Amino acid sequence: MSVQQLARDARLASVSLQSVTNEQKNEALLRIKQVLEERKDDIFQANEKDKQLAEEQVKLGKLSGSLFKRLDICNGDKFETILSGVSDITKLPDPTKKVTMATKVDSDLSLYRVTVPVGVLLTIFEARPEVVVNISCLALKSGNAVILKGGKEATHTNAMLALVIQDALASLPESNPIPKTAVQIVETREDISALLDLDRYIDMVVPRGSNSLVKYIQNNTRIPVLGHADGICSVYLDKEGDITKAARIAVDAKTNYPAACNAAETLLVHQDLLKSDFFSKVGQALLDAQVTLKCDTSSQSYLTEKLGNSNEAYKSKIQPVEDGDYDTEFLDHIIAVKVVQDVNEAVEHINDHGSKHTDSIVTENATTADFFMTRVDAAGCYWNTSTRFADGFRYGFGAEVGVSTNKTHARGPVGLEGLVIYKYRAYGNGNIAADYGSGKKPFLHDAIAPSDYHL
Amino acid sequence: MSVQQLARDARLASVSLQSVTNEQKNEALLRIKQVLEERKDDIFQANEKDKQLAEEQVKLGKLSGSLFKRLDICNGDKFETILSGVSDITKLPDPTKKVTMATKVDSDLSLYRVTVPVGVLLTIFEARPEVVVNISCLALKSGNAVILKGGKEATHTNAMLALVIQDALASLPESNPIPKTAVQIVETREDISALLDLDRYIDMVVPRGSNSLVKYIQNNTRIPVLGHADGICSVYLDKEGDITKAARIAVDAKTNYPAACNAAETLLVHQDLLKSDFFSKVGQALLDAQVTLKCDTSSQSYLTEKLGNSNEAYKSKIQPVEDGDYDTEFLDHIIAVKVVQDVNEAVEHINDHGSKHTDSIVTENATTADFFMTRVDAAGCYWNTSTRFADGFRYGFGAEVGVSTNKTHARGPVGLEGLVIYKYRAYGNGNIAADYGSGKKPFLHDAIAPSDYHL
Repeated sequence: MSVQQLARDARLASVSLQSVTNEQKNEALLRIKQVLEERKDDIFQANEKDKQLAEEQVKLGKLSGSLFKRLDICNGDKFETILSGVSDITKLPDPTKKVTMATKVDSDLSLYRVTVPVGVLLTIFEARPEVVVNISCLALKSGNAVILKGGKEATHTNAMLALVIQDALASLPESNPIPKTAVQIVETREDISALLDLDRYIDMVVPRGSNSLVKYIQNNTRIPVLGHADGICSVYLDKEGDITKAARIAVDAKTNYPAACNAAETLLVHQDLLKSDFFSKVGQALLDAQVTLKCDTSSQSYLTEKLGNSNEAYKSKIQPVEDGDYDTEFLDHIIAVKVVQDVNEAVEHINDHGSKHTDSIVTENATTADFFMTRVDAAGCYWNTSTRFADGFRYGFGAEVGVSTNKTHARGPVGLEGLVIYKYRAYGNGNIAADYGSGKKPFLHDAIAPSDYHL
Repeated sequence: MSVQQLARDARLASVSLQSVTNEQKNEALLRIKQVLEERKDDIFQANEKDKQLAEEQVKLGKLSGSLFKRLDICNGDKFETILSGVSDITKLPDPTKKVTMATKVDSDLSLYRVTVPVGVLLTIFEARPEVVVNISCLALKSGNAVILKGGKEATHTNAMLALVIQDALASLPESNPIPKTAVQIVETREDISALLDLDRYIDMVVPRGSNSLVKYIQNNTRIPVLGHADGICSVYLDKEGDITKAARIAVDAKTNYPAACNAAETLLVHQDLLKSDFFSKVGQALLDAQVTLKCDTSSQSYLTEKLGNSNEAYKSKIQPVEDGDYDTEFLDHIIAVKVVQDVNEAVEHINDHGSKHTDSIVTENATTADFFMTRVDAAGCYWNTSTRFADGFRYGFGAEVGVSTNKTHARGPVGLEGLVIYKYRAYGNGNIAADYGSGKKPFLHDAIAPSDYHL
């Protein structure tokens, strides 16, 4: 089957999905969970095949140990976690069919703005095969059709998971209109470049993976991309910051999970904090947490004098900042440090070098905090809070589609709401535009109360 | 000044605009109105210069009369309309600073989702110079900086209008932080291609103009584009339609303003309507309104038999449909006609050939209407209503930024709400992620009542 045909099938499936009820969507999800359980052996066999092939690649030094580990869905409680993830999604509220505006345009013409699925999603991801299940269920719950493309290391697992999901959908009762083409998978890189051209059929691309994957996609499609390439988050320590909060937040933001996009990569320090022990306490907390500090001149000499000269282990971790460090997502126990004159310079630095993801200020001064949070252009602007909170589960969304650094549609951690848009539904009685306007019928434009909704 | 510098200035202006109050924005708009009035002579002089140059182009056959007419802002009440448009925008509610989510993540950690300006807009438009004023005011009211590029025929008028607006902004009292770089203008095509590359500084492109202009922009930038290239709207006459409504709606949708994007280009007719006089009545109404019908075989022979054979004028306007007619925006007194088996085929035709703009069904059957409105993938799905209602003013938005056929961010007629996005503001007390999770502190995720908002 051609990729064009597959994309067209996804579009047709998405039309069927428009009329599906929340109960039918949950029925499909629970059926998927059941069939995944029933076909556990098939899935594990496919996963073993991928792992065997990957093991050879690891031996040849062509695949990293951590990538190999992500490939595995058999060991520990990983498979159970995947299954419980499916039931969790059934418990979320239906993001579609919500009326967000209702206007009486005339006595016999009502206008409603109603949330609807975006349509067809294309998800491109790397090693973790559980994304097949997770994103398929998020897509179905929000009424979207989805085309999946996973990493080549997980080819067999991905294909089997997609097949099992399709079988589950095909086995739904006649009364449930969700077609199995609501979830489809492609395997080659050529398929992807063909799909990225099909803005006629595909409404949104949701990449999940490395910076380079996301950048490649952003540069090669006109379809809107929901996600983020970089996560360059900063913590700014203000002159009126609390020292305990400053140390705790800096350490947590950097070390709680350094590989996450919401980990801090830059520490901005008000110059006054170098006139006391304030910044040396924060520096020491970071050094004790095995963080390497890549410092500008003044912070390097301050920290060396306060900490480095008396301690070789510290000294080796107090390093000079290099070109590009303030634009680098280290994803490691490394943080770039810069001394700034004031909050204004901190904001400017972040707006110039940050990735509009999440930035935090540590201060006890509410006015300074508001200045920072208002002027920093980021999806998350935090006061005395670690950047690590930028996450759909922590925000209470129940599920996370991804974190977006876009300036349109959806921003920050994105839950199911990011997979819907709206349409206007007008209910008339033969109304024509020629009847309205100056000297003719006026528009009412009255809000319709929810109790009077009629759609 | 380089285009890069100009775009960077716009970005810096947009940061200043983040903290501006609604009163300050309205103060700026009223100041703009006042200075436009004061500098009316300068503006008319510039407009005369453009019109003189354009007149020569008209004589040489290089510019159409209608384009020349659009250029003129001196005659009639055009200038007054521009000025009253400015005061109208001051009366609209501020789309920013609205809290759309408020969650107590923990007793000492509050999370708010608050609407904020998108940032920097780039607007590219054609002959009408009033767009300079209109879009600048919409941008300012929504807290966005804007870079403008108009058509070359209106170069002098556009430049003068932008200069006057900048002068007005520069003359604001010290207390008003809106910088004059909030509105800037560029003049050359090279500037535009450079700006379309600057996704680092520009957040959204709002083209206003021809299909080819919009398509060019969509194909040449990674920046999100708000707008529509095509407006291929359809009216579907169902077998259970009311004949009076059918004729009125078909005629209004086609002829009320054929050059508009919300005019109908395709008429889909249930086959049963050819078994009676139903469709000949509709056809006659269209023919009487000087519409040419480009018909498929069955509708052509039906209409020819019923109307054409006895009337030469009718006959000449009943023509065979040609390749591509169902994908064409005629923008004229021409409509493509197709007979369909049922509502399902009508929906399929629209989803294949339409431009996701606005489509209408004429039927007295509520179930059929719901089927159509649910399954047609368009920004507007109408029941017994002319497609011509797809318009920001008719929807009651007070102003229209444009009509979007996008599937993300903003869809259909777009008011000021389409120029804002949101950010998350978190207010903590030194909260770190490491303190939460299984075996540690739980998340509350309680909604915060508006009366308890503290931000």
